[in-house]
Amino acid sequence: MIDINKAIEALNWDKEPRGLYEPIEYTLASGGKRLRPTLALTAAELIVNGGLINGDAIDQALPAALALEVFHNFTLLHDDVMDRAAVRRGRETVHVKWNDNTAILSGDQMLIEAYKLLSDVPADKLPKVLKWFNEMATGICEGQQLDVDFEHASQVSIEDYMHMIELKTSVLLAYAMRIGGYIAGANEAQQEALYQYGLHIGLAFQIQDDILDVYGDPKTFGKAIGGDICCNKKTILLITALETADAESKAELLQWMMKQCTKEDVQSTKEKIEGVTAIYDRLGVRKACEDIMEQQTSLALAQLDRLPQNNATERLRELAEKLATRKS
Amino acid sequence: MIDINKAIEALNWDKEPRGLYEPIEYTLASGGKRLRPTLALTAAELIVNGGLINGDAIDQALPAALALEVFHNFTLLHDDVMDRAAVRRGRETVHVKWNDNTAILSGDQMLIEAYKLLSDVPADKLPKVLKWFNEMATGICEGQQLDVDFEHASQVSIEDYMHMIELKTSVLLAYAMRIGGYIAGANEAQQEALYQYGLHIGLAFQIQDDILDVYGDPKTFGKAIGGDICCNKKTILLITALETADAESKAELLQWMMKQCTKEDVQSTKEKIEGVTAIYDRLGVRKACEDIMEQQTSLALAQLDRLPQNNATERLRELAEKLATRKS
Repeated sequence: MIDINKAIEALNWDKEPRGLYEPIEYTLASGGKRLRPTLALTAAELIVNGGLINGDAIDQALPAALALEVFHNFTLLHDDVMDRAAVRRGRETVHVKWNDNTAILSGDQMLIEAYKLLSDVPADKLPKVLKWFNEMATGICEGQQLDVDFEHASQVSIEDYMHMIELKTSVLLAYAMRIGGYIAGANEAQQEALYQYGLHIGLAFQIQDDILDVYGDPKTFGKAIGGDICCNKKTILLITALETADAESKAELLQWMMKQCTKEDVQSTKEKIEGVTAIYDRLGVRKACEDIMEQQTSLALAQLDRLPQNNATERLRELAEKLATRKS
Repeated sequence: MIDINKAIEALNWDKEPRGLYEPIEYTLASGGKRLRPTLALTAAELIVNGGLINGDAIDQALPAALALEVFHNFTLLHDDVMDRAAVRRGRETVHVKWNDNTAILSGDQMLIEAYKLLSDVPADKLPKVLKWFNEMATGICEGQQLDVDFEHASQVSIEDYMHMIELKTSVLLAYAMRIGGYIAGANEAQQEALYQYGLHIGLAFQIQDDILDVYGDPKTFGKAIGGDICCNKKTILLITALETADAESKAELLQWMMKQCTKEDVQSTKEKIEGVTAIYDRLGVRKACEDIMEQQTSLALAQLDRLPQNNATERLRELAEKLATRKS
């Protein structure tokens, strides 16, 4: 198995002008789960171990795997500017450490760097991979815009929400799987199974993220509990609550949502989080959302049965189960 | 000849979410010279008329030509955020009409749209075209960063300046020529001549831009004269003046540069522009810069002699001469 962290470290950013490349190096050195390139390489390994093609195919998938990771980090860089986020992975964000213009320009260059890596995909596979990569990148931008639109939308359905997180989170995981498998020689049916696996673990992952924001253990979750409740974020919990509540609970929920809470006002923030959580508890929102998440995990696992069974398939099975039971 | 404006109008932006695509449609509808796609298509026509390949090759160059125009407009969109520019081509910029976040996200999507157009390049030509497009895009970002760095640099040489404008302006024109020609079947030597033509007209164009900012006719120039002098921009005129001035003139020039002038203070702005222009006149800066520009125009024209001679070659000859004598 290729060591993805070593491959990322081996990328060369020691180029001029330093003002452009230093923030890229800084961003990529900040760690993270490396989930996307791991998925791409595991998909390639799964197909190769299935005996369809020789082992070089895993190496051939590496440039695309790296492109996906660089692209993902580009989205974080620009998202942090747009969200005015000051900290990412325990370090200052680029727009804080440098400035907004640096974050915009180095982010743009990072997106271009992703396409540079992509240009090392074997020539016969390049047209499809480029097309899919573009579809994936478009999905991310559309999902980001929908997320912004939801802030001001008076009503958001579960269906709207699932569509948004599919674009914002899942397509990147889905295309990571498809691209990795395709480069290793996967046939159409296998590509589709790989894609659907990525899609469903992405949905499960995002739903679990929403649940942990309310019900996570503060000790293991790594950030403050209730952040989404605080700012009325239209998570699957809030949407489910608004959709299933009786008139009285709904009125109470809307009452809490009218209450703006600032970081300074610790007491009223605490009250709002407790108040909304109590409504969620009463309505059985947690169970309802966990059911949707588990359904997504099952759908992901079912895809794996349609693929060659080997070491890599087993790791993907474990990954899907781990994501569904994670605490942070 | 393909009507480039019609081809740009035919691009479909009637997609959801509107918040993402409307600013892209708005940006591309604001006109401009369409210089880059025109160069790409003219290069293709030159090669085809040279009898090397059939006429479909011009159509085949269209997606890449459009990709270059969409890319160019993406750079303007993000540059306007970074420069806090309020007006572009007589209309509000995107970050003013919408907001900064919209300009960042729709700009990102525009960059992705450029690569989407590029994915329609014939598959056998795609690997090289993608590689060149990435090199071009990297050049633009590096050039933009160097331009920012120059603001704070104590000394900038003519060589530094030429390197910066080569990256910031010329590589896009150069690669437009090379890519258009390559898709139409140009051989290596022809590709190189096309590339060099684009490079040298780009340099001539940028130098002329600097000259017009001081010596243009306010009636035809379209913007206020002396804007660069006002903010001490390190143009080729200022760099030439600082390099060639005797001690006394240099001291006088530095004196003027210390004088900050704001838009409100019309009188002191006028004095600074007149003062610096007088030094330029005394040192013969205009002539020196015009010589460099004409040298670049000659280098561009010389490339055309190495290419098939036809209608398209003639139009490129006229373009190079027109750029060198333009008044706006």
